[in-house]
Amino acid sequence: MRKIAVLGFGTVGSGTVESFYYHKDKILKENALDTDIKYILDLRDFPESPYNDKVIHDFSIIENDSEIAVAAELMGGINPAYDFTKRLLKKGISVVTSNKELVARHGAELLILAKEKNCNYFFEASTGGAIPIIRTLHDSLSANYIYKLQGILNGTTNFILTKMLDEQMPYKEALKLSQKLGYAERDPTADVSGADSCRKICILASIIFGKHILPEWVTTKGIEKITTEDAAFAESFGAKIKLIASAEKERDSDKIFITVEPHLVCNGNQLSHVSDVYNAVMVDASSAGRLMFYGSGAGKLPTASAVLSDITAALIANGTQNVLLWEDCTDEIIIDSKTVKRGYYLKQKDTDGQVIYGLSEEEITDKYDNIISLIPILE
Amino acid sequence: MRKIAVLGFGTVGSGTVESFYYHKDKILKENALDTDIKYILDLRDFPESPYNDKVIHDFSIIENDSEIAVAAELMGGINPAYDFTKRLLKKGISVVTSNKELVARHGAELLILAKEKNCNYFFEASTGGAIPIIRTLHDSLSANYIYKLQGILNGTTNFILTKMLDEQMPYKEALKLSQKLGYAERDPTADVSGADSCRKICILASIIFGKHILPEWVTTKGIEKITTEDAAFAESFGAKIKLIASAEKERDSDKIFITVEPHLVCNGNQLSHVSDVYNAVMVDASSAGRLMFYGSGAGKLPTASAVLSDITAALIANGTQNVLLWEDCTDEIIIDSKTVKRGYYLKQKDTDGQVIYGLSEEEITDKYDNIISLIPILE
Repeated sequence: MRKIAVLGFGTVGSGTVESFYYHKDKILKENALDTDIKYILDLRDFPESPYNDKVIHDFSIIENDSEIAVAAELMGGINPAYDFTKRLLKKGISVVTSNKELVARHGAELLILAKEKNCNYFFEASTGGAIPIIRTLHDSLSANYIYKLQGILNGTTNFILTKMLDEQMPYKEALKLSQKLGYAERDPTADVSGADSCRKICILASIIFGKHILPEWVTTKGIEKITTEDAAFAESFGAKIKLIASAEKERDSDKIFITVEPHLVCNGNQLSHVSDVYNAVMVDASSAGRLMFYGSGAGKLPTASAVLSDITAALIANGTQNVLLWEDCTDEIIIDSKTVKRGYYLKQKDTDGQVIYGLSEEEITDKYDNIISLIPILE
Repeated sequence: MRKIAVLGFGTVGSGTVESFYYHKDKILKENALDTDIKYILDLRDFPESPYNDKVIHDFSIIENDSEIAVAAELMGGINPAYDFTKRLLKKGISVVTSNKELVARHGAELLILAKEKNCNYFFEASTGGAIPIIRTLHDSLSANYIYKLQGILNGTTNFILTKMLDEQMPYKEALKLSQKLGYAERDPTADVSGADSCRKICILASIIFGKHILPEWVTTKGIEKITTEDAAFAESFGAKIKLIASAEKERDSDKIFITVEPHLVCNGNQLSHVSDVYNAVMVDASSAGRLMFYGSGAGKLPTASAVLSDITAALIANGTQNVLLWEDCTDEIIIDSKTVKRGYYLKQKDTDGQVIYGLSEEEITDKYDNIISLIPILE
């Protein structure tokens, strides 16, 4: 029997194991599979867990067990996940992961390695949680050129911004509430600074453009400076403030405009209606036109749903599926966001030191003194 | 070389051929395929078309050509599409289709036949146009039980209802405009009566519940009686009127509640923001939670996008993929919609013959005289 190993028994790992057994009959029957979870790798023991008999502490057991056909790397972080992933792929064991940091950093290399070893590296759970976006972009939209992709890719910041708008809750209070509800980590920097969204838009951009885009090339701004006054201004303007991750290809060139920034999203845009911890990805494709995919962007069971769809796909696949390869490239393909003309919401101090709000459709130059914030408008 | 035949060179057929050649390099490279369109079957000749050299009039040429690996049945209607599909599948040739009428009527039988002959019957384009919903339900949500699916599955009626609400345009005028813009057929009955949505919800319900649901079992109401006053009432109530196709499974039983009816959709529900000719499908899944998929529900190129994703999948597949089988069943599994307690928008004549509007959360019984219309509320 071709079996499964789960690496990491934290929130996503335990969700994956529980969800596998809860849905096992359906998964096996509908996909004509016969499989089981053989190992769970973790440093800890879990005497309370019904799955403790599967827990092991030595990675090499998995690596050297020829029954293992697919491993779910749910540890997060670069090390030792990167090393483990390479060692598994080298053995021809497919790896599926929720590890956005690793995919954004080493995705191109790991995809090539999987192809060389005729197995698969899948990462549906790395971006958009339960939303089936990775496979959709590659498989369902294969007969499309995708020019533009914009999304709300971080549930914590979307929750905070929703509270700031709907309940005029100040930023710090909304952040505390999101921590209390378990959405934000104790150190929320990766969420609120935009770094988490940045990794995810890098993964999505690499898929649609076929080039490995690195996080440090992306103009990334967080939501830390957004105030309830900004949120109220947005509402009066018929818009909402959302942290938008955006990737767009210039027509007739290889240049890519990629940013993570708060935007004033007008109410006519579907993304303005995505509230609370939900995520959404909007795609403009050559044949399919405009599409949007909406769902839970994180959480134990939604992420497990994506991990298990990848495990199933890896077990069904006979050799490398989805020839998803990203060429290496340099940051020369990235368009400097300062050179792009956009409409802005502008907050500045006037000559008397008063804060004033307004809109600007002009190019932003030095003539605007005392700018506190400049937020692009998304129609 | 394993080649493609296109059956029917109408709007979807010509869109499929044009889109295939426009995206050919990308499709072949990303999926490691080598293929071409060999035949286009149609009764007519197309001397103006660059593809006229592929046009043939005799179906048996396709059936008997061992180079043909997949056929796209884009003719619509039951006959001769049903006969052609069976003959192709019997030869082991995979069939992909946009034909919702045929899938809703004979899907179970054709899926079994494909499995017996180790080929595939795919129908992504039959429902939701460009929205990748069929494959998503089966593959990406394999580790989920889906309890409920609700959607706006007909673009023409959604366009009409949007005009009635946003511009107070009377029903007949909005219908004429939709015909002028090419959204509605000259005979718009299938759209406005709900029959088109009914076929589509039957297909989606059959997938998620694994039982073949037939159109005649579904309580189906159209939008013909909706007025601009109803639309205005909905707006005053913080809602919009939408034609909702809905399928829901009773917990702990096999019973299914399935309807196509206009609903008052409250603004907190994502479906209320789906306007114009767009479609959307909302899914409640055991692990993934709530998901929504939004996009163009019809049109030449969006439908071609779905057809080509199926053609690609059929060419990649090595034998039957997606063991998507629907059991035959009877209408005994269907819950009588009259027995379900819901909140309603109620329009009735009072004792003086005046039309009055209101809301009712009570069970609808005979005590309501002179009911003009009763529209369920979707929160």
